[in-house]
Amino acid sequence: MMKWKTAISTHKDGELYVRGHALAGLINKHSFTEMIFLLLAKRMPNEKEVKLLDAVLVSCAEHGVEAPSAFSARVSVSTGNSLHAALAAGILATGEWHGGALEKAAEYLQSEKTPSQIVRDVRESGGRLAGLGHKIYKDKDPRAELLFAKAKELGFSGNYVLRMHELQNELEKQSGKKLPINIDGAGAALISELGFDWRLGKAIFVLGRLPGMIAHAHEEMVNEKPYRRFSEEDVEYVGPEPREEFL
Amino acid sequence: MMKWKTAISTHKDGELYVRGHALAGLINKHSFTEMIFLLLAKRMPNEKEVKLLDAVLVSCAEHGVEAPSAFSARVSVSTGNSLHAALAAGILATGEWHGGALEKAAEYLQSEKTPSQIVRDVRESGGRLAGLGHKIYKDKDPRAELLFAKAKELGFSGNYVLRMHELQNELEKQSGKKLPINIDGAGAALISELGFDWRLGKAIFVLGRLPGMIAHAHEEMVNEKPYRRFSEEDVEYVGPEPREEFL
Amino acid sequence: MMKWKTAISTHKDGELYVRGHALAGLINKHSFTEMIFLLLAKRMPNEKEVKLLDAVLVSCAEHGVEAPSAFSARVSVSTGNSLHAALAAGILATGEWHGGALEKAAEYLQSEKTPSQIVRDVRESGGRLAGLGHKIYKDKDPRAELLFAKAKELGFSGNYVLRMHELQNELEKQSGKKLPINIDGAGAALISELGFDWRLGKAIFVLGRLPGMIAHAHEEMVNEKPYRRFSEEDVEYVGPEPREEFL
Amino acid sequence: MMKWKTAISTHKDGELYVRGHALAGLINKHSFTEMIFLLLAKRMPNEKEVKLLDAVLVSCAEHGVEAPSAFSARVSVSTGNSLHAALAAGILATGEWHGGALEKAAEYLQSEKTPSQIVRDVRESGGRLAGLGHKIYKDKDPRAELLFAKAKELGFSGNYVLRMHELQNELEKQSGKKLPINIDGAGAALISELGFDWRLGKAIFVLGRLPGMIAHAHEEMVNEKPYRRFSEEDVEYVGPEPREEFL
Repeated sequence: MMKWKTAISTHKDGELYVRGHALAGLINKHSFTEMIFLLLAKRMPNEKEVKLLDAVLVSCAEHGVEAPSAFSARVSVSTGNSLHAALAAGILATGEWHGGALEKAAEYLQSEKTPSQIVRDVRESGGRLAGLGHKIYKDKDPRAELLFAKAKELGFSGNYVLRMHELQNELEKQSGKKLPINIDGAGAALISELGFDWRLGKAIFVLGRLPGMIAHAHEEMVNEKPYRRFSEEDVEYVGPEPREEFL
Repeated sequence: MMKWKTAISTHKDGELYVRGHALAGLINKHSFTEMIFLLLAKRMPNEKEVKLLDAVLVSCAEHGVEAPSAFSARVSVSTGNSLHAALAAGILATGEWHGGALEKAAEYLQSEKTPSQIVRDVRESGGRLAGLGHKIYKDKDPRAELLFAKAKELGFSGNYVLRMHELQNELEKQSGKKLPINIDGAGAALISELGFDWRLGKAIFVLGRLPGMIAHAHEEMVNEKPYRRFSEEDVEYVGPEPREEFL
Repeated sequence: MMKWKTAISTHKDGELYVRGHALAGLINKHSFTEMIFLLLAKRMPNEKEVKLLDAVLVSCAEHGVEAPSAFSARVSVSTGNSLHAALAAGILATGEWHGGALEKAAEYLQSEKTPSQIVRDVRESGGRLAGLGHKIYKDKDPRAELLFAKAKELGFSGNYVLRMHELQNELEKQSGKKLPINIDGAGAALISELGFDWRLGKAIFVLGRLPGMIAHAHEEMVNEKPYRRFSEEDVEYVGPEPREEFL
Repeated sequence: MMKWKTAISTHKDGELYVRGHALAGLINKHSFTEMIFLLLAKRMPNEKEVKLLDAVLVSCAEHGVEAPSAFSARVSVSTGNSLHAALAAGILATGEWHGGALEKAAEYLQSEKTPSQIVRDVRESGGRLAGLGHKIYKDKDPRAELLFAKAKELGFSGNYVLRMHELQNELEKQSGKKLPINIDGAGAALISELGFDWRLGKAIFVLGRLPGMIAHAHEEMVNEKPYRRFSEEDVEYVGPEPREEFL
């Protein structure tokens, strides 16, 4: 028989208690962001922690229809799926390269290695350092600066913010390249300041991202006809010659 | 070539604007719940609307490990999947019967039919009226009462709340059975008060539910060994006799 | 405790028996198509049934990269997901409008209504008759003809093939429009001839389709760099004017 | 604009050509297993290759309702999802630990390292060698022996079969433990003999597995009522004490 051990919630006298807090009280007095914090960090946040988490989640919410998590959700709706199934499709179009840098950078920040070791290991494995660099912004990523300013304004100690900058400096030292901390690197520092396990990184991105996916999938459902396909002109065929003897 | 038409966001001078609002300003000054409202209802909410949406989302967040959306996410992690893929699995374990009643009830509330027609149509099709009835609570569902009290306290006009009660009365009239409005029925009334399209119902449930799924999948990832299976004793075989001549 | 009742397989003396057949014998003497038939139709097929099922499955396997199930699987890989998670994404881009017509047409064929009733009901509900009509082929769909020829060559009774043609005639009678039976309509007739429940229709499509999705996702994984996005020029923005006061 | 480069299929004069073969000819003359081989190995197989691939696919098809990929698909159906969405859920319950060993072992077999290096690297990283060992069979895994016998009977050169046995011997040499080659190790050797890229491993498992998932999801849909949950007695709560002051 399958048995589940959990510290998340339990029932007592017909009431559900989440991390010890009665659901009734949570519904009555707490915001969604507080509930998220309680569930993921295992305690009720203070007001400043709520504001910082809000900033991180809002920063993930919308990236335009061009982003794979947005258009994949739309495509799923367009072939006739329920909106909730389309959200699953959208989530399966996030990953290592779309949303994954937040988690990867948080892993560096929370590891026990020194910045110098981290940079060396990543460079030796031929990878790129997550959280640094941007296609357009060469000097500073303004959205990352915004998140850092928020953390400072709210009085966070900044140890992880500092460590993210150490990674940036270390990379410059080892490679000669100065890359800006991007929004993923800033987000990684902030969720680490908030005490979230780095392994929650992609999930926090997905959670912040979900309202955007919903808006896109719903817009597709309401306004567009079935269904999305590419056309032959979008395709370059590089395979074996069609052989008519097979017809 | 595939073309996308969207009213959700656009870029101007390197800045993303969501429903006309600069992302920088949203990160800087607005909560996650405000961002959700802006994306889904297409305008910035006032303070009372934020509080009501918070209450609805919080009410969906956690149902215990027993709920299919929670344990399916855990099972996916347990077989070695990324946390974000596990969230897709969890979402695919919500649907018509787990989370779907919120959307169905909102559809009734926003339809142009009279309560009497709605109840008649549902009864004739052999279905059950979504948003009414509960396994344990026979008279009143206290979580539904909590949501209604919240709406009243915040000063919502209550037309949809009223209409949900009319459905309840109409069902009693037609069937002789008095069923309590449950949490899905209350949630349906509240998202309708907030101006959300009923077709967003399941997605709003999934969004509220996601933090709970994340907490469960993460707990599984951190604490448990691979992987979850049932055992033979959980299975009753009712198929053809094993035939040894096939060996 | 969750209990499962199943007629699909059981263990005896360390051997798995599928629908009564020892797995060892199945591995040793039977083809994949026979195994599919055994699992879904609950008995071992004869040689002709195998060939007909082969024809249906092969006809679903590949539709070009333009099809949503192909490119959605590729997009999922391109953002860094495992190939198997990408297959889930590809499946979530099939549905009512991409693959669903096979199931819908099989539902008509296996219903107890007369062709005349079916056509009337579909027309009254404002829908289109699944299995009939094609963008390019106005007279005959050559792939459907191929499947019908196969069924005839293999000596199938043809009752469902006949009924599919009756639906075609009935539509012409009621609407004045002569539409060709398409590949979905032909597939629906053939799986009905084979005794498959119509509710397996989308699943049979997905099964036949999966090798194509795998080929596409694998090609993306091996040949392409992360990750697929649309560009701004693919987007037409129709929302509210960006307002700089929000910056 | 998103452009796709593909070697899988193209259209010419209204006919689809898959790896150069006209779809009409494929439907007319070839089995599903041949189509799978053509799509994944990029050429038409001979008769012996078809039989070997059949054996591998059949060996994956059914593992009982106890397996996560089976019961997760059932749970998804039970909450009201379409059968095809439930297949996506089932696939998201395969992974590293359920189906993943086939791919991992094939990676070893196709790597350029010596068996001794492979075993050393795996042991140093603290992992277990995929493809070796079984809960019940301590000496020989009869299903693996069956697959090896099949390969021999069909005249495969056996280089990869040999290499799998070298890994087994090397592990015994380095660890003193003699573990049997299991069905994943045998399958890995066989798909390598057939020329499949190891990165197709999980996808081949999923493809072979899909008919079993379909049978289970369909059985749930036809026979069972909504919806699957665990009960409180299946749960052990280990979190903070419910605090009534929060009520």
